[in-house]
Amino acid sequence: IAQAAHAPTASARDGGAPAVPAAVQSATPALAAYMRDSLYGDVWQRPDLSPRDRSLVTLAALVARNQADDMPDEVDRALENGVRAAELSELITHLAFYTGWGNAVSAAEVAAAAFAERGIGTGQLPAADPTLLPLDAEAEARRESFVQERFGDVSPGVVDKTRDLLFLDLWLRPALTPRDRSLVTVSALVATGKVEQMPFHLNKAMDNGLTKPEASEVLTQLAFYAGWPNVFSALPVAKEVFAAREEK
Amino acid sequence: IAQAAHAPTASARDGGAPAVPAAVQSATPALAAYMRDSLYGDVWQRPDLSPRDRSLVTLAALVARNQADDMPDEVDRALENGVRAAELSELITHLAFYTGWGNAVSAAEVAAAAFAERGIGTGQLPAADPTLLPLDAEAEARRESFVQERFGDVSPGVVDKTRDLLFLDLWLRPALTPRDRSLVTVSALVATGKVEQMPFHLNKAMDNGLTKPEASEVLTQLAFYAGWPNVFSALPVAKEVFAAREEK
Amino acid sequence: IAQAAHAPTASARDGGAPAVPAAVQSATPALAAYMRDSLYGDVWQRPDLSPRDRSLVTLAALVARNQADDMPDEVDRALENGVRAAELSELITHLAFYTGWGNAVSAAEVAAAAFAERGIGTGQLPAADPTLLPLDAEAEARRESFVQERFGDVSPGVVDKTRDLLFLDLWLRPALTPRDRSLVTVSALVATGKVEQMPFHLNKAMDNGLTKPEASEVLTQLAFYAGWPNVFSALPVAKEVFAAREEK
Repeated sequence: IAQAAHAPTASARDGGAPAVPAAVQSATPALAAYMRDSLYGDVWQRPDLSPRDRSLVTLAALVARNQADDMPDEVDRALENGVRAAELSELITHLAFYTGWGNAVSAAEVAAAAFAERGIGTGQLPAADPTLLPLDAEAEARRESFVQERFGDVSPGVVDKTRDLLFLDLWLRPALTPRDRSLVTVSALVATGKVEQMPFHLNKAMDNGLTKPEASEVLTQLAFYAGWPNVFSALPVAKEVFAAREEK
Repeated sequence: IAQAAHAPTASARDGGAPAVPAAVQSATPALAAYMRDSLYGDVWQRPDLSPRDRSLVTLAALVARNQADDMPDEVDRALENGVRAAELSELITHLAFYTGWGNAVSAAEVAAAAFAERGIGTGQLPAADPTLLPLDAEAEARRESFVQERFGDVSPGVVDKTRDLLFLDLWLRPALTPRDRSLVTVSALVATGKVEQMPFHLNKAMDNGLTKPEASEVLTQLAFYAGWPNVFSALPVAKEVFAAREEK
Repeated sequence: IAQAAHAPTASARDGGAPAVPAAVQSATPALAAYMRDSLYGDVWQRPDLSPRDRSLVTLAALVARNQADDMPDEVDRALENGVRAAELSELITHLAFYTGWGNAVSAAEVAAAAFAERGIGTGQLPAADPTLLPLDAEAEARRESFVQERFGDVSPGVVDKTRDLLFLDLWLRPALTPRDRSLVTVSALVATGKVEQMPFHLNKAMDNGLTKPEASEVLTQLAFYAGWPNVFSALPVAKEVFAAREEK
């Protein structure tokens, strides 16, 4: 039933934006108008964050919130906005670790359908075992020592898997740049209210090249896709991170 | 499969309460008994919060938690309890901003089906661009200056959209009273664990007419629909808000 | 569509582990490899937490996160790992209170299908009204007085229902041991980020027999099923609980 109700209205798609679902138009005309005028017609067009980045942020929010039903249109828009299939595949693999396995599996199903439709085969997608990017050994030693000292005795399993799977492997996979990995990680954290994990990852994102105006617009985009309360809880954390970096 | 399994047992519906799903009866007889005796037979009948308000709280929790599968029965019950179709439409539009766009789209699909079944057309639903309620300009100036000062430099986009879309527009739409908007906003915050955003909105709710006994019963209702832990995390916040208001 | 895409690849199931979904293999080969090698081939095999306990933790996470689509394979694995049908039924009833009613209803539908397939009838499942386990009256008096004093005036409904339904009833139902109830409660709290409710329940879990190495491995298991950020937010809380107990 969800499938049918998600069907777009007859009106043609407008400049890459998904059509407003017919059910939204009929049951909530005001929501349809906000969607067309404020969200698609305004927010997505704002400068300071590219359409491609907005697609990454939006997809990260949908995976993080396990809203696979809303993904097909956004996958189409992401591919039109310049996200490559290999990047989309890697985003999903990355978010398995940062949002939970089931979320990634549901997203993979949407991606598989989109790839099949476009004739994109596994050969065009990131291999399981690629040559990794070079490691910043010093930064990783600092991170590992900090975590090991605090939590090595609390859960050695978590500490070991964090090092071996995440920081010596996943983050070094070349199919998604470190900056884009950080972008989707921060987006997922905001979208699920995990603001206590934001300082590390927002700093890492900005070390990886995300600018302050971009980070600021990530929050504007997420207000719509993850709800205002998640963004208002993220604002004081972002404020502190920005301030601490400016002091340096 | 979810559709079929959600089918009610043969037993007739009891006083507006949805029938216990057949799968619950067969796989979890204890849960079925709690549902009939404690939830439908007791909690929904408690004084201090009307059945209509309990329907608003429950629908807000379902939208906030993106549980559209559980909505059809609760939409039926809400309409029987006196929630008007126009109010339901507006609740969904409101919660798009407070719980995320995808949640509202899924809820709109459920509402569209319920409206179609009852022959309720778009003409009976709130227009996209109605005459707005009058603005309390002084309160809005205080809010805007507080937020602008703290976060104007962190995310101008969020601050601008909060003012222009939420407080100068959405909250002034006449199809849902300010008190009911507050009721569903607070319910959504509790249901998703955003307790740090509760003080502003619970105060606003009580300024808008929600009584302390009602707010207290909102938490009882939400214990069932959003789980005990969300409510226990909300209790200390509600305690502080109640205490601060009594001191005045 | 989700049903079809969840279909396993042709390769036979490996030692109780669900097959990697075909969509994951085709759209995200890296995720498929992590799933096979790191999750199923390594984490599930680690000592310090039994396969049966890992199944309870995983099912609790799926119910808590309302991921019923991912449950059928894990229900199969749980039953193979020694979780009894009566325990599964009771886990779902328990988590209705700790994760919200809708989550439990969706899980009951999955369980109903699994039970029907195996010819397990209601007679083999926990009755609605069994003879309860004996109450630790002193501990309950302490709990009730603590909660009554803090929140009795904030929400009498919540305080009364917590006592009557949870601690004088649900927790005393014999079909799931107190230790296992605690295990699934703690898992649900971590999986939904309700870490402020963890100290009470992790202490209760350890009072009920969960060892520190087991609790530590619960976090490793949940890193995968609930995402790294939820586990990293739980680590400092677990650290404090462990330290406070060692001081005694």
